[in-house]
Amino acid sequence: MIPSIDHLSSLLDDAPPGDDDMARAVRARADDILRPAGALARLDELAVWVARWQATDQPDVASPEAIVFAADHGVTAEGVSAYPAEVTAAMLGAFESGQASISVLAAVAGATVRAVDVGVGRPTGNLRVEAALDRNRFAEAWTAGQAAVAESSADMLVFGEMGIGNTTAAAAVTAAILGVSAEKTVGRGTGIDDGTRAHKVQVVEDALDRIVTVRDPLAVLAEVGGAELVAIAGATVEARRRRIPVLLDGYIATAPILALDAADHRAVEHVMAGHRSAEPGHRLALERLGLEPLLDLDLRLGEASGAMAAIPLVRSACRLVTAVPTFAEFFGPPTDD
Amino acid sequence: MIPSIDHLSSLLDDAPPGDDDMARAVRARADDILRPAGALARLDELAVWVARWQATDQPDVASPEAIVFAADHGVTAEGVSAYPAEVTAAMLGAFESGQASISVLAAVAGATVRAVDVGVGRPTGNLRVEAALDRNRFAEAWTAGQAAVAESSADMLVFGEMGIGNTTAAAAVTAAILGVSAEKTVGRGTGIDDGTRAHKVQVVEDALDRIVTVRDPLAVLAEVGGAELVAIAGATVEARRRRIPVLLDGYIATAPILALDAADHRAVEHVMAGHRSAEPGHRLALERLGLEPLLDLDLRLGEASGAMAAIPLVRSACRLVTAVPTFAEFFGPPTDD
Repeated sequence: MIPSIDHLSSLLDDAPPGDDDMARAVRARADDILRPAGALARLDELAVWVARWQATDQPDVASPEAIVFAADHGVTAEGVSAYPAEVTAAMLGAFESGQASISVLAAVAGATVRAVDVGVGRPTGNLRVEAALDRNRFAEAWTAGQAAVAESSADMLVFGEMGIGNTTAAAAVTAAILGVSAEKTVGRGTGIDDGTRAHKVQVVEDALDRIVTVRDPLAVLAEVGGAELVAIAGATVEARRRRIPVLLDGYIATAPILALDAADHRAVEHVMAGHRSAEPGHRLALERLGLEPLLDLDLRLGEASGAMAAIPLVRSACRLVTAVPTFAEFFGPPTDD
Repeated sequence: MIPSIDHLSSLLDDAPPGDDDMARAVRARADDILRPAGALARLDELAVWVARWQATDQPDVASPEAIVFAADHGVTAEGVSAYPAEVTAAMLGAFESGQASISVLAAVAGATVRAVDVGVGRPTGNLRVEAALDRNRFAEAWTAGQAAVAESSADMLVFGEMGIGNTTAAAAVTAAILGVSAEKTVGRGTGIDDGTRAHKVQVVEDALDRIVTVRDPLAVLAEVGGAELVAIAGATVEARRRRIPVLLDGYIATAPILALDAADHRAVEHVMAGHRSAEPGHRLALERLGLEPLLDLDLRLGEASGAMAAIPLVRSACRLVTAVPTFAEFFGPPTDD
């Protein structure tokens, strides 16, 4: 019914691996740069990562893009969110008119933003009692994610999401993939009170009970995810096929990465964590993925905002290796020119 | 002998306080912005901080500047560093020609860099056995720091340092002000081995023994600090008098801030921590100051680099409050224009 692990693996069999030669070249240069060896170790690692996936010894973040996928969720009928479902459509308008927080962050970071509607006004099934996405909706969202990346000319991508109710979907996917209880993955989303959170935990527990026999991570994503989560999964795989490095946003954007990782780790080799969000489940997810975030500022906005805030750091990391001379270049013998 | 606490306090008596009205106005607006309340809490705090010290409800980081003070240290005679003292002069050349790491970071951050020589080729006294700076050298360095800020037209300042041997000075100042042993404040600097580190601990312990009766924090800075540390102290006070917010760099740049804070807390009210360095003493120093750093990436370069890497975050924080509409502005009644 759902794109299978076999299908995912065949997509990845065709994908070129990371370029280890370029990664080695940039690491060697980083060790010779005009500064104490290792003084910027974390940033050097970033430059090596970009070099590997851009397949160049001149890594750079010159044209980053945020693609924000927006969709509505049937689970909002359960009263799990502090905001009505109609806010999703309004925010889609804010993205399109450049008035959203991500628009401002992108302007500072020298990035572009694209909003992609994968289901605003067409809520998914209520994941508490039924599959969120059937085969057709899954394929549609996955393909939209792939297509958005195919149309991009970015040298680094950030995938964001907007969808009232989608922290519930992220909590369900994260709990199912990690094999932990809803208590550990349900946070406060956009700011719910204790009673609403307890209800949200129950909604997720019911969803987990409903899919207890489901083993395929992509089927988990269909059963208790959402259209924007599936689109991020498709987009991430397409970026992997095109060797475009992906800087990961927060909790919701990470849930489909967990599912991909569980299905076939090659799908997420090109992904680095931009930030750690205030949602408690995000820490668990990043630990499973073995990713150390660049920022840890208790942000919990989504929209690709946390990763976008980290884009200047990645650009700096690249230029600190390519634009600063090595000791030999700086102290080398004088020439006549 | 040394500029006294009384002199510092009189400088600060003349300084205008932070603008609480502007801070309140920006906080109120932040709470109404088109995103879930508190979703970007740490960034909102940054915007409020900038508003308070720029005394405006339109906080921005449009023209940040790094001022890097460079000086030589007599304590290098003790063999405490992995690099020879001559590297200080060479690095000063790299700053001036725009080839240093800080130059590249500043270009990404849209900032300018100025290098100020406060004693390259004129090493201070060997702090193990004698005062690093006498009265004249202290006054000269302090005044150079004040003058550098007086000449600046920046809306945010970062003070950096370059001086082979200056982690030893920072470790001594930090230990003396915090009242802890050298064991807790001596790290690996630019990359020394275990034996050299043990020797560096002994050098700092000897210095601490030598000044055990010194109580005035500014005298501590003169006895076991360095010219660039004193310049940073003078520059920080001048920035406070001009209400220019200061984003704090790493371990060495923080040592004079500790001394100022101990002398008169008003001197550092306008200071925020840009990053936490890999030097273990920096964590202790930031805890004493009650500052939570924006970045925690194990950087240990100095040169203002860690704080400069955080400048885009502060700019983003400001624009996320000034350039994103409030709910009322976004959803308000339609008009005819």
